[in-house]
Amino acid sequence: MSVTHPAGFRAAGAAVGLKSSGAKDFALVVNDGPDFDSATVFTSNRCKANPVLWSEQVVKDGVVRAVVLNSGGANCYTGPEGFLTTHRVAEEVGAALGVGAGDVVVCSTGLIGLVNDRQLLVDGVRVLHSRLAADGGNDAAEAIMTTDTVSKQVVVQGPGGAWSIGGMAKGAGMLAPALATMLVVITTDAVVPAGQLDASLRAATRVSFDRLDSDGCQSTNDTVTLMASGASGVTPTPEEFTAALAELCTDLAQQLLADAEGADHEIAITTLNAASEDEAVEVGRSVARSNLFKAAVFGKDPNWGRVLASVGTTTAAFDPADLDVAMNGVWVCRHSTPAEDPALVDLGPRKVTVTIDLKAGDAEATVWTNDLTHAYVHENSAYSS
Amino acid sequence: MSVTHPAGFRAAGAAVGLKSSGAKDFALVVNDGPDFDSATVFTSNRCKANPVLWSEQVVKDGVVRAVVLNSGGANCYTGPEGFLTTHRVAEEVGAALGVGAGDVVVCSTGLIGLVNDRQLLVDGVRVLHSRLAADGGNDAAEAIMTTDTVSKQVVVQGPGGAWSIGGMAKGAGMLAPALATMLVVITTDAVVPAGQLDASLRAATRVSFDRLDSDGCQSTNDTVTLMASGASGVTPTPEEFTAALAELCTDLAQQLLADAEGADHEIAITTLNAASEDEAVEVGRSVARSNLFKAAVFGKDPNWGRVLASVGTTTAAFDPADLDVAMNGVWVCRHSTPAEDPALVDLGPRKVTVTIDLKAGDAEATVWTNDLTHAYVHENSAYSS
Repeated sequence: MSVTHPAGFRAAGAAVGLKSSGAKDFALVVNDGPDFDSATVFTSNRCKANPVLWSEQVVKDGVVRAVVLNSGGANCYTGPEGFLTTHRVAEEVGAALGVGAGDVVVCSTGLIGLVNDRQLLVDGVRVLHSRLAADGGNDAAEAIMTTDTVSKQVVVQGPGGAWSIGGMAKGAGMLAPALATMLVVITTDAVVPAGQLDASLRAATRVSFDRLDSDGCQSTNDTVTLMASGASGVTPTPEEFTAALAELCTDLAQQLLADAEGADHEIAITTLNAASEDEAVEVGRSVARSNLFKAAVFGKDPNWGRVLASVGTTTAAFDPADLDVAMNGVWVCRHSTPAEDPALVDLGPRKVTVTIDLKAGDAEATVWTNDLTHAYVHENSAYSS
Repeated sequence: MSVTHPAGFRAAGAAVGLKSSGAKDFALVVNDGPDFDSATVFTSNRCKANPVLWSEQVVKDGVVRAVVLNSGGANCYTGPEGFLTTHRVAEEVGAALGVGAGDVVVCSTGLIGLVNDRQLLVDGVRVLHSRLAADGGNDAAEAIMTTDTVSKQVVVQGPGGAWSIGGMAKGAGMLAPALATMLVVITTDAVVPAGQLDASLRAATRVSFDRLDSDGCQSTNDTVTLMASGASGVTPTPEEFTAALAELCTDLAQQLLADAEGADHEIAITTLNAASEDEAVEVGRSVARSNLFKAAVFGKDPNWGRVLASVGTTTAAFDPADLDVAMNGVWVCRHSTPAEDPALVDLGPRKVTVTIDLKAGDAEATVWTNDLTHAYVHENSAYSS
């Protein structure tokens, strides 16, 4: 159900021929109102795909009526022809729904540099429109999958079930700072004006998607769109709405982490007692990007030396001679020297925790990553994406 | 011969029991003068190994009489006891040579957090001293190898052969900016004062070792020490000495690249027409650190989309809609859209070139990296380092 769980939304997913496998590859999520407030965040990559260039303009007025998404091609670095395809799809959706093309967000995912067949998409819009349904969330979530092995969906209820938020996401690689190869559509039937939606969305993504760094690579197409229909008639406080949204985004981020390409381990890197939250994130991200550390976790080697070697590349405040590191709760390093026996660390289970105590303040943050595996290399060398 | 090719130097290498394999693991390079000028650059990692902490003090006066190096243990994050070991080794070398311990640079490489047997090293100094020879460069170069499959040595002659520079290096992984898991000893019989040595060394490393980024990981032990004996009696101009030194450092850097852990390809990423050399390096390094791009090269996939996705994460000046990319000379992307057929790019050979035209100025730089392979994951997951 996911994006169609909140009242006021319909969705559809269909196979229109973009994927040679014949799997679903085109999705539409429509807000039927009565409100049409929205907020969206995009990739911070400066090389942006055509649908991002289009959608950046669409979202500026805070009004979004529908999101149309295709897998099977990222429509990135496809030049003016690719932009025309994005524009044409938005126009078709607008015409079908009786709204302006300028209120339609377009998202694409798949291989960069691949030109999608425009007619397939144009014809596909009619198919999607005919299938729009109040229980179409599942079909839509499946249609945006690429190398994902499962669809990612979640629903979070407001207090007493008076309103809800639903979300769907895709993404299984290129997961990196400031979002990456990630398309997310979030819906809510709460009454929330666009300005508040924007503040809540930025607060929620900052502690969820932005702290996911699967392989350090940043995509050209990332888009997270939040639409509020107001159909519940209930206006939550900003605090309770933001908290529910952060819970939803964190849940989806964990689903992305769990399905990351070729990963054997999900690694949560928590930096304690940093001088600031930004420095805690910087330290965690430096470890999350160490291929040597990630390969060690794959090999079930609790190699804390590779953790400290990464910490040492950051600008965070700390005393290099007084760092503590734990893996799965075993403090293998105290005061930058060997402490508890690394043999006590069992890296067999899929979930791994790394804890770094900087002893420089009282801020903390957790960054999530995966290990570097043979399957990752295989998946990213044998197939284009 | 390498470090013992220039007049005024002796060297030795021996197996003293640090490596369980029984291979050579301890090396000594001695400057017999008449001059004892030197310059050294260290890792920029803030978490430094004990030998780096010691040697940083040793080199401050510009005088170095000897460099003693061990493989089989990095002596990093081993606390005060590890520092005492480094200090004791320097004292033993100083006593054997009749010089002050404060003129002895110490280098270590191997596993982080491993405490080396102090007595093995102390006894080993006597062995090395007894074997010092004017043709001992090869033994020394072999003794510093860890996962290196071949020793790295080079000699560059000054004009007319009036003076020469010799160098040896070790390093096969963790090759990253600002030097990494790399120990280099360079000798020359030219007459060059310490201040000029320092300027020349910084100029040479900036365009050689600092542009090698095999896996984005930065070591805790990197040291490049240059010693000048003055034994030739010839004083080169600063320009000719710096040029020869840069040639030597670039040759050693290429040897490190060719022997990088598990690599199938050597990739030279050249950024053209950047607004500044720093921006050209930033762009090249961003591509060199893209696991997705590196895995694609391993898979012989000329995936220029992953190149542009990396370029887009930088702060360099460029127009995202007007980037050109060539692989092995085939311009697969022009004006940020598909151009020549990627099928024309043959990624079979070991050497690969990537050329990125930013069209934003007239600066350029080349960064070297390797592909991301199954063998890299295997080597760094199956063995600690």
